[in-house]
Amino acid sequence: MDTYLGRVKAEILSIGDELLLGDIVDTNKPYIARQLVQLGISPTYFQTVGDESEDIVMAFKLALSRAHVIIATGGLGPTDDDLTAACVAKALDVPLEHREDVMDQMSARLKRPKDQFTASNRKQALLPLGAHVLRNDWGTAPGIHCEAPGSRHIFLTAGVPREMKGLLGTWIVPWLKEHFPSPETITIRQFSAFGIPESRIGEQLKDLMQPGNNPDVGTRVADGVCTVRVVARAKDPAATAALLAPAVARVKEVLQEGLFGEGDETLPAVTARLLIQSKKTIALAESCTAGMVASLLAATPGISAVLLEAAVVYSNEAKVRTCGVREETLQAYGAVSAETARELAEGMRQRARTDIGVSVTGIAGPDGGTLAKPVGLFFVGVATASGTQVYERSYPGLDRQLFRERAAFTALDLVRRVALELW
Amino acid sequence: MDTYLGRVKAEILSIGDELLLGDIVDTNKPYIARQLVQLGISPTYFQTVGDESEDIVMAFKLALSRAHVIIATGGLGPTDDDLTAACVAKALDVPLEHREDVMDQMSARLKRPKDQFTASNRKQALLPLGAHVLRNDWGTAPGIHCEAPGSRHIFLTAGVPREMKGLLGTWIVPWLKEHFPSPETITIRQFSAFGIPESRIGEQLKDLMQPGNNPDVGTRVADGVCTVRVVARAKDPAATAALLAPAVARVKEVLQEGLFGEGDETLPAVTARLLIQSKKTIALAESCTAGMVASLLAATPGISAVLLEAAVVYSNEAKVRTCGVREETLQAYGAVSAETARELAEGMRQRARTDIGVSVTGIAGPDGGTLAKPVGLFFVGVATASGTQVYERSYPGLDRQLFRERAAFTALDLVRRVALELW
Repeated sequence: MDTYLGRVKAEILSIGDELLLGDIVDTNKPYIARQLVQLGISPTYFQTVGDESEDIVMAFKLALSRAHVIIATGGLGPTDDDLTAACVAKALDVPLEHREDVMDQMSARLKRPKDQFTASNRKQALLPLGAHVLRNDWGTAPGIHCEAPGSRHIFLTAGVPREMKGLLGTWIVPWLKEHFPSPETITIRQFSAFGIPESRIGEQLKDLMQPGNNPDVGTRVADGVCTVRVVARAKDPAATAALLAPAVARVKEVLQEGLFGEGDETLPAVTARLLIQSKKTIALAESCTAGMVASLLAATPGISAVLLEAAVVYSNEAKVRTCGVREETLQAYGAVSAETARELAEGMRQRARTDIGVSVTGIAGPDGGTLAKPVGLFFVGVATASGTQVYERSYPGLDRQLFRERAAFTALDLVRRVALELW
Repeated sequence: MDTYLGRVKAEILSIGDELLLGDIVDTNKPYIARQLVQLGISPTYFQTVGDESEDIVMAFKLALSRAHVIIATGGLGPTDDDLTAACVAKALDVPLEHREDVMDQMSARLKRPKDQFTASNRKQALLPLGAHVLRNDWGTAPGIHCEAPGSRHIFLTAGVPREMKGLLGTWIVPWLKEHFPSPETITIRQFSAFGIPESRIGEQLKDLMQPGNNPDVGTRVADGVCTVRVVARAKDPAATAALLAPAVARVKEVLQEGLFGEGDETLPAVTARLLIQSKKTIALAESCTAGMVASLLAATPGISAVLLEAAVVYSNEAKVRTCGVREETLQAYGAVSAETARELAEGMRQRARTDIGVSVTGIAGPDGGTLAKPVGLFFVGVATASGTQVYERSYPGLDRQLFRERAAFTALDLVRRVALELW
């Protein structure tokens, strides 16, 4: 954290019983935190409290005692348990004020004349004295900005992620950029690779990963994807670029062809983009992944131009009927075998007359494993004009769903390499 | 919240820079919170702090001042920025103590003699004086339980969800059950329905949803699924059952055939289970959902016995080749039409010789919409021995991925009704 620690500290609050009860996973906090980090502002504390006036007031008082910027979400709605604005007024020791300008905004948004407002509507127009209103184009509760003694600033938004993101991006981030200009430029770059163990990457980047380094290099891993982040801090963009260049070169060298994307790019999105750009058509024969590869690719618009057909071929009959796998192959080697994977990929490519044919067949479990073919074993076949290759992999420790995801990502990564003509 | 507010308050802490930086979404807190609610313990505050000694100590001191049970995750690892145990010792004002019993446990776990331990290993055996050790069978860092004055209790686990869940379920929950027995029984039941607007359910259950009611009834909605939760509090299970019965009956009456599951059951899992139980075989022809329906069903073990085949038929050629859709139909009505949906479902059912044939075809966007067929429009065809039905739906406001999920759930819900012979 030291590396990121700017002079400006931020605290993020979430308010709502649904969070305390565990009904909802709080994705607002990490989203807001990432925006702040980019501004050179350090998210230093998070708090969550329920719809209890006393607890909310205490949370704001604590935040005011230790953070310069406070961003709170939730509790701005029309119902009786929406208490945030009133509690901020208490924490700041100012009265609430009826705001006709808020009534006007809500009237336009709700398409209803002010004189037809319910008591609940009117309640949303009660703001701490002197508050600035942030127009909410994504919902009815306006965002609120209160100044506190000691150059402290409280920003309030609704808890609905869409409204929070709109208010944050349109009003709060630009305001912070202007009023808390970062004393230095912080530039973050991140690179993701599939299928390389984090420990190997960590070993090879050990010298760059020493605490206190600038740029600061860190790794994290999720679902077989290892992400390396490089953060440089310097007086201006040219200086951070100069700091980043050698580290980024080293990272790329270590990740080599495993590197699939930068920033927030995902493996399915990168693979889909490469297929669309290179106009390489593809057909899929999925057994254990059962449509997951197709579905992941299909999240990218325009994929239908190249993903011509996919088949979920669980049954042997379907493997034979749709992909032309030979009965003898299934009998001699079984459905989960290199031979079947090969015929599935080739058969699917022929059937759909595509540039690439891909197959995935494996044992997802929890049952169906044998000593020779344990749960976690799978084969990926990739057929192109230049021939067919079959990959055997095994992830014995994963549960059914994680196994299927890993198998799907393995197939996507191989397709990515084909689209890039890496083989 | 009032309804859940037992006499015992809990505070949940998470420790780690990766949380403050927004790299990780904190799923530990809601998981722990749900466990506590079931025990009649009220999760009342959440805090997150980074790997800074001063902040961690302050967070524990604050928690000790207002909560009876404190559960903290993270910062128990071997590296220099793992500070939790030392900070708890400071917050409790007790020294750290070298624990040979922890060394023994770690030695067994790491399969390494104690005399070969590194300094980092040894550090993990330094515990606040008098702490109880919770054996960690899921990782190396032992869980820790410290007693504090005033019958307050601190539990520490690693931040890795698997380790946290193991320690919580094996040691912490049983301990809390024994030492903080709930003064009353809390019984929670929840029911989920797809495709019924939350506002309509709320309107019909209005009288049950008044604040302060016992049982307490609440609704929430995510991805088109509305979940109704009923919470009863009384002196014993018989009494909560008596309280629940009429409310549950009302909820079931309101949800009617839309009700697909109880507790944490998901629509894909329920649909898969019903297909497997009823031995109804199924084949899918997916266009806009592109394998998502198949992939969601395939998360359930044993599905391959009934999901015989699925086809992603983006291209018109694939629709003709695989499902026998007539060229004339495509030309006259287009790929996104009731007629094409009908022929896709019937063709797929014939092809795979299954009890049920299902098709989904629609316009996922962002491009490809027209005035007559806007983005968000889709058709689901369901063919059975007793005939074919086609459903037209439209979700114009959703982005591509949410639209595909909603279309997939619509198809799954129709399949569920077929499996239940609701039509």
